[in-house]
Amino acid sequence: MSILITLEGVDGSGKSTQAKLLANNLNEKGYNIISLREPGDTELGENLRELLNDHQGTNTSITDLSQLCLFLASRAQLVAEKIAPALSGTNNIVICDRYMDSTLAYQGYGMGFDIELIKRVNSYVVGHCKPSLTILIDCPIKVSVSRTIARTKKMSRFEAKANDFQKRVREGFISLANEEPKRWHVVDGTLNKITLSKQILLIAVNAIRDLSGQKTPE
Amino acid sequence: MSILITLEGVDGSGKSTQAKLLANNLNEKGYNIISLREPGDTELGENLRELLNDHQGTNTSITDLSQLCLFLASRAQLVAEKIAPALSGTNNIVICDRYMDSTLAYQGYGMGFDIELIKRVNSYVVGHCKPSLTILIDCPIKVSVSRTIARTKKMSRFEAKANDFQKRVREGFISLANEEPKRWHVVDGTLNKITLSKQILLIAVNAIRDLSGQKTPE
Repeated sequence: MSILITLEGVDGSGKSTQAKLLANNLNEKGYNIISLREPGDTELGENLRELLNDHQGTNTSITDLSQLCLFLASRAQLVAEKIAPALSGTNNIVICDRYMDSTLAYQGYGMGFDIELIKRVNSYVVGHCKPSLTILIDCPIKVSVSRTIARTKKMSRFEAKANDFQKRVREGFISLANEEPKRWHVVDGTLNKITLSKQILLIAVNAIRDLSGQKTPE
Repeated sequence: MSILITLEGVDGSGKSTQAKLLANNLNEKGYNIISLREPGDTELGENLRELLNDHQGTNTSITDLSQLCLFLASRAQLVAEKIAPALSGTNNIVICDRYMDSTLAYQGYGMGFDIELIKRVNSYVVGHCKPSLTILIDCPIKVSVSRTIARTKKMSRFEAKANDFQKRVREGFISLANEEPKRWHVVDGTLNKITLSKQILLIAVNAIRDLSGQKTPE
Protein backbone atom coordinates (compact mmCIF):
# COMPACT_ATOMS: atom_id res chain seq x y z
CA MET A 1 0.00 0.00 0.00
CA SER A 2 1.12 3.55 -0.73
CA ILE A 3 1.16 6.26 1.93
CA LEU A 4 1.60 10.01 2.24
CA ILE A 5 4.04 11.47 4.77
CA THR A 6 4.08 15.23 5.37
CA LEU A 7 6.63 17.41 7.13
CA GLU A 8 5.45 20.54 8.86
CA GLY A 9 6.98 23.32 10.91
CA VAL A 10 7.57 27.06 11.04
CA ASP A 11 9.95 28.81 8.61
CA GLY A 12 13.51 28.03 9.67
CA SER A 13 12.61 24.82 11.50
CA GLY A 14 14.73 22.78 9.10
CA LYS A 15 11.71 21.15 7.54
CA SER A 16 12.78 21.31 3.90
CA THR A 17 16.28 20.01 4.69
CA GLN A 18 14.79 17.14 6.67
CA ALA A 19 12.25 16.36 3.93
CA LYS A 20 15.14 15.95 1.47
CA LEU A 21 17.20 13.86 3.91
CA LEU A 22 14.22 11.61 4.63
CA ALA A 23 13.59 11.11 0.91
CA ASN A 24 17.26 10.23 0.34
CA ASN A 25 17.47 7.95 3.34
CA LEU A 26 14.30 6.05 2.44
CA ASN A 27 15.40 5.88 -1.16
CA GLU A 28 18.72 4.33 -0.10
CA LYS A 29 16.81 1.72 1.83
CA GLY A 30 15.02 0.81 -1.39
CA TYR A 31 11.64 2.44 -0.88
CA ASN A 32 9.91 3.98 -3.87
CA ILE A 33 9.88 7.70 -3.05
CA ILE A 34 7.99 10.60 -4.62
CA SER A 35 9.15 13.95 -3.18
CA LEU A 36 6.87 16.97 -3.43
CA ARG A 37 6.63 20.44 -1.97
CA GLU A 38 3.91 23.01 -1.46
CA PRO A 39 3.14 25.32 -3.09
CA GLY A 40 4.63 24.01 -6.30
CA ASP A 41 5.52 20.84 -8.14
CA THR A 42 2.90 21.29 -10.84
CA GLU A 43 2.96 23.87 -13.61
CA LEU A 44 0.13 25.76 -11.93
CA GLY A 45 1.73 25.41 -8.50
CA GLU A 46 5.05 26.83 -9.67
CA ASN A 47 3.23 29.70 -11.43
CA LEU A 48 1.41 30.48 -8.19
CA ARG A 49 4.60 30.17 -6.12
CA GLU A 50 6.16 32.78 -8.41
CA LEU A 51 3.09 35.01 -8.16
CA LEU A 52 3.19 34.80 -4.37
CA ASN A 53 6.92 35.58 -4.25
CA ASP A 54 6.70 38.43 -6.79
CA HIS A 55 4.08 40.20 -4.77
CA GLN A 56 5.73 39.71 -1.40
CA GLY A 57 6.25 43.01 0.33
CA THR A 58 5.29 45.10 -2.71
CA ASN A 59 2.59 47.73 -2.91
CA THR A 60 0.42 45.40 -4.90
CA SER A 61 0.69 42.72 -2.31
CA ILE A 62 -1.78 39.86 -2.39
CA THR A 63 -4.29 39.93 0.47
CA ASP A 64 -4.05 37.22 3.12
CA LEU A 65 -7.37 35.75 2.05
CA SER A 66 -6.33 35.59 -1.62
CA GLN A 67 -3.10 33.89 -0.55
CA LEU A 68 -5.13 31.29 1.30
CA CYS A 69 -7.17 30.60 -1.87
CA LEU A 70 -3.99 30.38 -3.98
CA PHE A 71 -2.51 27.80 -1.60
CA LEU A 72 -5.73 25.80 -1.90
CA ALA A 73 -5.63 26.05 -5.71
CA SER A 74 -2.05 24.81 -5.76
CA ARG A 75 -2.94 21.97 -3.38
CA ALA A 76 -5.96 20.86 -5.43
CA GLN A 77 -3.75 20.68 -8.52
CA LEU A 78 -0.97 18.81 -6.70
CA VAL A 79 -3.47 16.28 -5.37
CA ALA A 80 -5.01 15.68 -8.80
CA GLU A 81 -1.76 15.59 -10.80
CA LYS A 82 0.67 13.96 -8.41
CA ILE A 83 -0.53 12.73 -5.03
CA ALA A 84 -3.70 10.84 -6.00
CA PRO A 85 -1.99 8.98 -8.89
CA ALA A 86 0.99 8.12 -6.64
CA LEU A 87 -1.21 6.85 -3.83
CA SER A 88 -3.19 4.71 -6.22
CA GLY A 89 0.06 2.98 -7.21
CA THR A 90 1.65 0.09 -5.33
CA ASN A 91 4.05 0.72 -2.46
CA ASN A 92 4.78 4.37 -3.15
CA ILE A 93 5.91 6.64 -0.34
CA VAL A 94 4.91 10.22 -1.07
CA ILE A 95 6.80 12.80 1.01
CA CYS A 96 5.40 16.32 0.97
CA ASP A 97 7.22 19.37 2.37
CA ARG A 98 4.21 21.29 3.80
CA TYR A 99 0.60 20.31 3.10
CA MET A 100 -2.86 20.95 4.47
CA ASP A 101 -1.71 21.59 8.05
CA SER A 102 0.42 24.57 6.99
CA THR A 103 -2.74 26.36 5.87
CA LEU A 104 -4.33 25.70 9.25
CA ALA A 105 -1.26 26.85 11.17
CA TYR A 106 -0.41 29.92 9.07
CA GLN A 107 -3.74 31.19 7.80
CA GLY A 108 -5.86 29.78 10.62
CA TYR A 109 -3.84 30.10 13.83
CA GLY A 110 -1.37 32.71 12.51
CA MET A 111 -3.65 35.06 10.56
CA GLY A 112 -6.90 34.37 12.36
CA PHE A 113 -9.06 32.98 9.54
CA ASP A 114 -11.91 30.64 10.50
CA ILE A 115 -10.19 27.37 11.46
CA GLU A 116 -13.27 25.17 11.12
CA LEU A 117 -13.96 26.52 7.64
CA ILE A 118 -10.33 25.92 6.57
CA LYS A 119 -10.60 22.36 7.90
CA ARG A 120 -13.72 21.72 5.83
CA VAL A 121 -12.27 23.22 2.67
CA ASN A 122 -8.95 21.42 3.22
CA SER A 123 -10.75 18.09 3.54
CA TYR A 124 -12.68 18.82 0.39
CA VAL A 125 -9.53 19.74 -1.53
CA VAL A 126 -7.43 16.74 -0.48
CA GLY A 127 -10.28 14.21 -0.67
CA HIS A 128 -8.94 10.76 0.19
CA CYS A 129 -5.31 11.99 -0.02
CA LYS A 130 -4.87 12.61 3.69
CA PRO A 131 -1.42 12.17 5.24
CA SER A 132 -0.95 8.95 7.21
CA LEU A 133 2.03 10.39 9.08
CA THR A 134 2.89 14.02 9.78
CA ILE A 135 6.20 14.97 11.32
CA LEU A 136 6.22 18.31 13.11
CA ILE A 137 9.70 19.76 13.42
CA ASP A 138 9.14 21.92 16.44
CA CYS A 139 11.54 24.72 17.13
CA PRO A 140 11.65 27.68 19.53
CA ILE A 141 10.88 30.86 17.61
CA LYS A 142 14.21 32.44 18.59
CA VAL A 143 16.06 29.64 16.81
CA SER A 144 13.85 29.45 13.70
CA VAL A 145 13.79 33.22 13.28
CA SER A 146 17.56 33.60 13.56
CA ARG A 147 18.03 30.79 11.02
CA THR A 148 15.61 32.46 8.61
CA ILE A 149 17.30 35.83 9.00
CA ALA A 150 20.70 34.23 8.35
CA ARG A 151 19.34 32.58 5.22
CA THR A 152 17.22 35.32 3.71
CA LYS A 153 19.06 38.41 4.99
CA LYS A 154 15.64 39.98 5.40
CA MET A 155 16.10 40.92 8.98
CA SER A 156 13.84 43.86 9.64
CA ARG A 157 10.73 42.75 7.81
CA PHE A 158 10.94 39.23 9.09
CA GLU A 159 11.76 40.17 12.66
CA ALA A 160 8.89 42.61 12.81
CA LYS A 161 6.26 39.99 12.41
CA ALA A 162 8.29 37.16 13.86
CA ASN A 163 7.58 37.39 17.51
CA ASP A 164 3.80 37.28 17.55
CA PHE A 165 2.94 35.72 14.19
CA GLN A 166 5.51 32.92 14.23
CA LYS A 167 4.61 32.11 17.81
CA ARG A 168 0.95 31.72 16.90
CA VAL A 169 1.91 29.50 13.96
CA ARG A 170 4.12 27.33 16.18
CA GLU A 171 1.38 27.01 18.79
CA GLY A 172 -1.07 26.20 16.00
CA PHE A 173 1.06 23.30 14.83
CA ILE A 174 1.31 22.01 18.40
CA SER A 175 -2.48 22.21 18.83
CA LEU A 176 -3.00 20.29 15.59
CA ALA A 177 -0.50 17.64 16.70
CA ASN A 178 -2.33 17.28 20.02
CA GLU A 179 -5.68 16.87 18.26
CA GLU A 180 -4.48 13.86 16.27
CA PRO A 181 -1.65 12.22 18.21
CA LYS A 182 -1.84 9.06 16.10
CA ARG A 183 -0.99 10.88 12.90
CA TRP A 184 1.50 13.41 14.27
CA HIS A 185 5.01 12.88 15.61
CA VAL A 186 6.73 15.90 17.13
CA VAL A 187 10.53 16.08 16.91
CA ASP A 188 13.01 18.61 18.25
CA GLY A 189 14.20 21.00 15.52
CA THR A 190 17.14 22.23 17.61
CA LEU A 191 18.87 18.85 17.35
CA ASN A 192 21.85 18.48 15.09
CA LYS A 193 20.79 17.85 11.48
CA ILE A 194 22.09 14.27 11.22
CA THR A 195 20.79 13.17 14.63
CA LEU A 196 17.38 14.58 13.75
CA SER A 197 17.34 12.91 10.34
CA LYS A 198 18.01 9.53 11.97
CA GLN A 199 15.13 10.07 14.39
CA ILE A 200 12.79 11.01 11.56
CA LEU A 201 13.91 8.04 9.46
CA LEU A 202 13.13 5.67 12.35
CA ILE A 203 9.67 7.18 12.83
CA ALA A 204 8.98 6.93 9.10
CA VAL A 205 10.17 3.33 8.72
CA ASN A 206 8.04 2.24 11.67
CA ALA A 207 5.01 4.09 10.35
CA ILE A 208 5.44 2.69 6.85
CA ARG A 209 5.61 -0.83 8.29
CA ASP A 210 2.57 -0.33 10.53
CA LEU A 211 0.42 1.70 8.14
CA SER A 212 1.20 0.34 4.73
CA GLY A 213 2.34 -3.18 5.53
CA GLN A 214 5.60 -2.51 3.64
CA LYS A 215 8.70 -4.04 5.19
CA THR A 216 12.10 -2.41 4.77
CA PRO A 217 13.02 -3.47 1.24
CA GLU A 218 16.67 -4.19 2.25
CA MET B 1 -25.24 55.20 0.32
CA SER B 2 -23.19 53.12 -2.10
CA ILE B 3 -24.44 49.84 -3.56
CA LEU B 4 -23.16 46.88 -5.55
CA ILE B 5 -25.04 45.68 -8.64
CA THR B 6 -23.98 42.43 -10.30
CA LEU B 7 -24.86 41.00 -13.71
CA GLU B 8 -25.00 37.25 -14.13
CA GLY B 9 -25.80 34.81 -16.89
CA VAL B 10 -24.37 32.00 -19.00
CA ASP B 11 -21.64 32.61 -21.60
CA GLY B 12 -23.23 34.30 -24.60
CA SER B 13 -26.16 35.75 -22.67
CA GLY B 14 -25.05 39.28 -23.47
CA LYS B 15 -24.08 39.96 -19.87
CA SER B 16 -20.82 41.83 -20.52
CA THR B 17 -22.38 43.99 -23.22
CA GLN B 18 -25.27 44.86 -20.90
CA ALA B 19 -22.91 45.57 -17.99
CA LYS B 20 -21.11 48.14 -20.15
CA LEU B 21 -24.36 49.67 -21.40
CA LEU B 22 -25.71 49.92 -17.87
CA ALA B 23 -22.53 51.61 -16.67
CA ASN B 24 -22.68 54.11 -19.56
CA ASN B 25 -26.39 54.78 -19.13
CA LEU B 26 -26.12 55.35 -15.39
CA ASN B 27 -23.03 57.45 -15.92
CA GLU B 28 -24.91 59.66 -18.39
CA LYS B 29 -27.61 60.15 -15.79
CA GLY B 30 -24.93 61.48 -13.43
CA TYR B 31 -24.41 58.51 -11.12
CA ASN B 32 -20.91 57.79 -9.87
CA ILE B 33 -20.10 54.45 -11.49
CA ILE B 34 -17.29 51.97 -10.80
CA SER B 35 -17.26 49.16 -13.41
CA LEU B 36 -15.56 45.87 -12.58
CA ARG B 37 -15.38 42.37 -13.96
CA GLU B 38 -14.51 38.96 -12.61
CA PRO B 39 -11.99 37.44 -12.71
CA GLY B 40 -9.77 40.46 -13.15
CA ASP B 41 -9.54 44.17 -12.45
CA THR B 42 -6.68 43.83 -9.98
CA GLU B 43 -3.08 42.94 -10.80
CA LEU B 44 -3.57 39.52 -9.21
CA GLY B 45 -6.95 39.04 -10.89
CA GLU B 46 -5.58 39.80 -14.36
CA ASN B 47 -2.63 37.46 -13.72
CA LEU B 48 -5.06 34.71 -12.76
CA ARG B 49 -7.34 35.44 -15.72
CA GLU B 50 -4.30 34.96 -17.97
CA LEU B 51 -3.31 31.76 -16.17
CA LEU B 52 -6.84 30.38 -16.59
CA ASN B 53 -6.93 31.28 -20.30
CA ASP B 54 -3.42 29.96 -21.00
CA HIS B 55 -4.26 26.58 -19.59
CA GLN B 56 -7.66 26.29 -21.24
CA GLY B 57 -7.87 23.13 -23.28
CA THR B 58 -4.15 22.33 -22.95
CA ASN B 59 -2.63 19.14 -21.61
CA THR B 60 -1.62 20.92 -18.45
CA SER B 61 -5.14 22.11 -17.86
CA ILE B 62 -6.06 23.40 -14.43
CA THR B 63 -8.39 21.09 -12.52
CA ASP B 64 -11.95 22.27 -11.89
CA LEU B 65 -11.30 22.48 -8.14
CA SER B 66 -8.16 24.58 -8.64
CA GLN B 67 -10.12 26.86 -10.94
CA LEU B 68 -12.72 27.31 -8.23
CA CYS B 69 -9.98 28.34 -5.77
CA LEU B 70 -8.44 30.74 -8.30
CA PHE B 71 -11.80 32.45 -8.83
CA LEU B 72 -12.11 32.83 -5.06
CA ALA B 73 -8.57 34.25 -4.82
CA SER B 74 -9.35 36.78 -7.54
CA ARG B 75 -12.63 37.68 -5.81
CA ALA B 76 -10.99 38.18 -2.41
CA GLN B 77 -8.46 40.54 -3.98
CA LEU B 78 -11.15 42.47 -5.92
CA VAL B 79 -13.20 42.87 -2.74
CA ALA B 80 -10.23 44.15 -0.73
CA GLU B 81 -8.75 46.42 -3.41
CA LYS B 82 -11.81 47.77 -5.18
CA ILE B 83 -15.27 46.84 -3.95
CA ALA B 84 -14.92 47.42 -0.19
CA PRO B 85 -13.26 50.85 -0.65
CA ALA B 86 -15.90 51.85 -3.24
CA LEU B 87 -18.80 50.76 -1.03
CA SER B 88 -17.37 52.66 1.93
CA GLY B 89 -17.48 55.84 -0.19
CA THR B 90 -20.54 58.05 -0.63
CA ASN B 91 -23.08 57.37 -3.37
CA ASN B 92 -20.97 55.03 -5.48
CA ILE B 93 -22.64 52.50 -7.75
CA VAL B 94 -20.37 49.48 -8.25
CA ILE B 95 -21.31 47.35 -11.27
CA CYS B 96 -19.67 43.94 -11.45
CA ASP B 97 -19.79 41.67 -14.51
CA ARG B 98 -20.01 38.27 -12.77
CA TYR B 99 -19.49 37.82 -9.03
CA MET B 100 -20.15 35.27 -6.31
CA ASP B 101 -23.22 33.74 -8.02
CA SER B 102 -21.18 32.69 -11.05
CA THR B 103 -19.13 30.37 -8.83
CA LEU B 104 -22.33 28.83 -7.50
CA ALA B 105 -23.83 28.40 -10.96
CA TYR B 106 -20.71 27.16 -12.77
CA GLN B 107 -18.75 25.26 -10.14
CA GLY B 108 -21.70 24.33 -7.96
CA TYR B 109 -24.64 23.57 -10.27
CA GLY B 110 -22.54 23.06 -13.42
CA MET B 111 -19.61 21.03 -12.15
CA GLY B 112 -21.24 19.47 -9.12
CA PHE B 113 -19.09 20.86 -6.30
CA ASP B 114 -20.70 21.14 -2.86
CA ILE B 115 -23.11 24.08 -3.15
CA GLU B 116 -23.47 24.69 0.59
CA LEU B 117 -19.68 24.77 1.02
CA ILE B 118 -19.30 27.23 -1.88
CA LYS B 119 -21.99 29.42 -0.30
CA ARG B 120 -20.10 29.47 3.02
CA VAL B 121 -16.74 30.22 1.42
CA ASN B 122 -18.30 32.83 -0.89
CA SER B 123 -19.84 34.62 2.11
CA TYR B 124 -16.50 34.53 3.88
CA VAL B 125 -14.67 35.92 0.85
CA VAL B 126 -17.07 38.79 0.10
CA GLY B 127 -17.73 39.71 3.75
CA HIS B 128 -20.09 42.68 3.88
CA CYS B 129 -19.69 43.31 0.12
CA LYS B 130 -22.81 41.46 -0.96
CA PRO B 131 -24.70 42.61 -4.05
CA SER B 132 -27.88 44.57 -3.36
CA LEU B 133 -29.21 43.90 -6.85
CA THR B 134 -28.37 41.04 -9.20
CA ILE B 135 -29.64 41.03 -12.76
CA LEU B 136 -29.84 37.61 -14.38
CA ILE B 137 -29.81 37.78 -18.15
CA ASP B 138 -31.57 34.55 -18.88
CA CYS B 139 -31.19 33.02 -22.29
CA PRO B 140 -32.12 29.67 -23.87
CA ILE B 141 -28.96 27.58 -24.28
CA LYS B 142 -29.45 27.32 -28.06
CA VAL B 143 -29.18 31.09 -28.36
CA SER B 144 -26.28 31.61 -25.94
CA VAL B 145 -24.28 28.73 -27.41
CA SER B 146 -24.70 29.90 -31.00
CA ARG B 147 -23.64 33.43 -29.97
CA THR B 148 -20.56 32.07 -28.20
CA ILE B 149 -19.61 29.91 -31.17
CA ALA B 150 -19.99 32.89 -33.51
CA ARG B 151 -17.75 34.97 -31.24
CA THR B 152 -15.04 32.50 -30.28
CA LYS B 153 -15.03 30.25 -33.36
CA LYS B 154 -14.46 27.38 -30.95
CA MET B 155 -17.31 25.31 -32.19
CA SER B 156 -16.48 21.72 -31.48
CA ARG B 157 -15.05 22.02 -27.99
CA PHE B 158 -17.71 24.43 -26.87
CA GLU B 159 -20.61 22.56 -28.42
CA ALA B 160 -19.49 19.31 -26.87
CA LYS B 161 -19.99 20.47 -23.34
CA ALA B 162 -22.68 23.00 -24.16
CA ASN B 163 -25.80 20.98 -24.03
CA ASP B 164 -25.57 19.46 -20.58
CA PHE B 165 -23.15 21.76 -18.76
CA GLN B 166 -24.59 25.08 -19.92
CA LYS B 167 -28.09 23.85 -19.18
CA ARG B 168 -27.11 23.01 -15.60
CA VAL B 169 -25.50 26.43 -15.22
CA ARG B 170 -28.61 28.18 -16.56
CA GLU B 171 -30.85 26.20 -14.25
CA GLY B 172 -28.47 26.98 -11.39
CA PHE B 173 -28.83 30.70 -11.98
CA ILE B 174 -32.62 30.34 -12.07
CA SER B 175 -32.58 28.41 -8.76
CA LEU B 176 -30.44 31.08 -7.14
CA ALA B 177 -32.79 33.80 -8.41
CA ASN B 178 -35.78 31.94 -6.99
CA GLU B 179 -34.08 31.59 -3.60
CA GLU B 180 -33.65 35.34 -3.21
CA PRO B 181 -36.34 37.05 -5.28
CA LYS B 182 -35.78 40.40 -3.57
CA ARG B 183 -32.19 40.63 -4.74
CA TRP B 184 -32.56 39.09 -8.21
CA HIS B 185 -34.29 40.43 -11.30
CA VAL B 186 -34.53 38.09 -14.27
CA VAL B 187 -34.58 39.64 -17.74
CA ASP B 188 -34.92 38.09 -21.20
CA GLY B 189 -31.55 37.79 -22.95
CA THR B 190 -33.16 37.19 -26.35
CA LEU B 191 -34.50 40.73 -26.48
CA ASN B 192 -32.88 43.24 -28.77
CA LYS B 193 -29.79 44.81 -27.15
CA ILE B 194 -31.19 48.33 -26.81
CA THR B 195 -34.62 47.24 -25.56
CA LEU B 196 -32.95 45.05 -22.95
CA SER B 197 -30.57 47.79 -21.85
CA LYS B 198 -33.53 50.12 -21.24
CA GLN B 199 -35.25 47.47 -19.14
CA ILE B 200 -32.10 46.90 -17.10
CA LEU B 201 -31.58 50.64 -16.65
CA LEU B 202 -35.11 51.02 -15.28
CA ILE B 203 -34.61 48.13 -12.83
CA ALA B 204 -31.29 49.60 -11.70
CA VAL B 205 -32.56 53.16 -11.23
CA ASN B 206 -35.51 51.91 -9.18
CA ALA B 207 -33.27 49.69 -7.07
CA ILE B 208 -30.76 52.48 -6.49
CA ARG B 209 -33.56 54.78 -5.34
CA ASP B 210 -35.11 52.15 -3.05
CA LEU B 211 -31.90 50.62 -1.69
CA SER B 212 -29.47 53.47 -1.44
CA GLY B 213 -31.78 56.44 -1.09
CA GLN B 214 -30.07 58.06 -4.11
CA LYS B 215 -32.36 59.98 -6.42
CA THR B 216 -31.61 60.28 -10.14
CA PRO B 217 -28.95 63.00 -10.15
CA GLU B 218 -30.49 64.67 -13.25
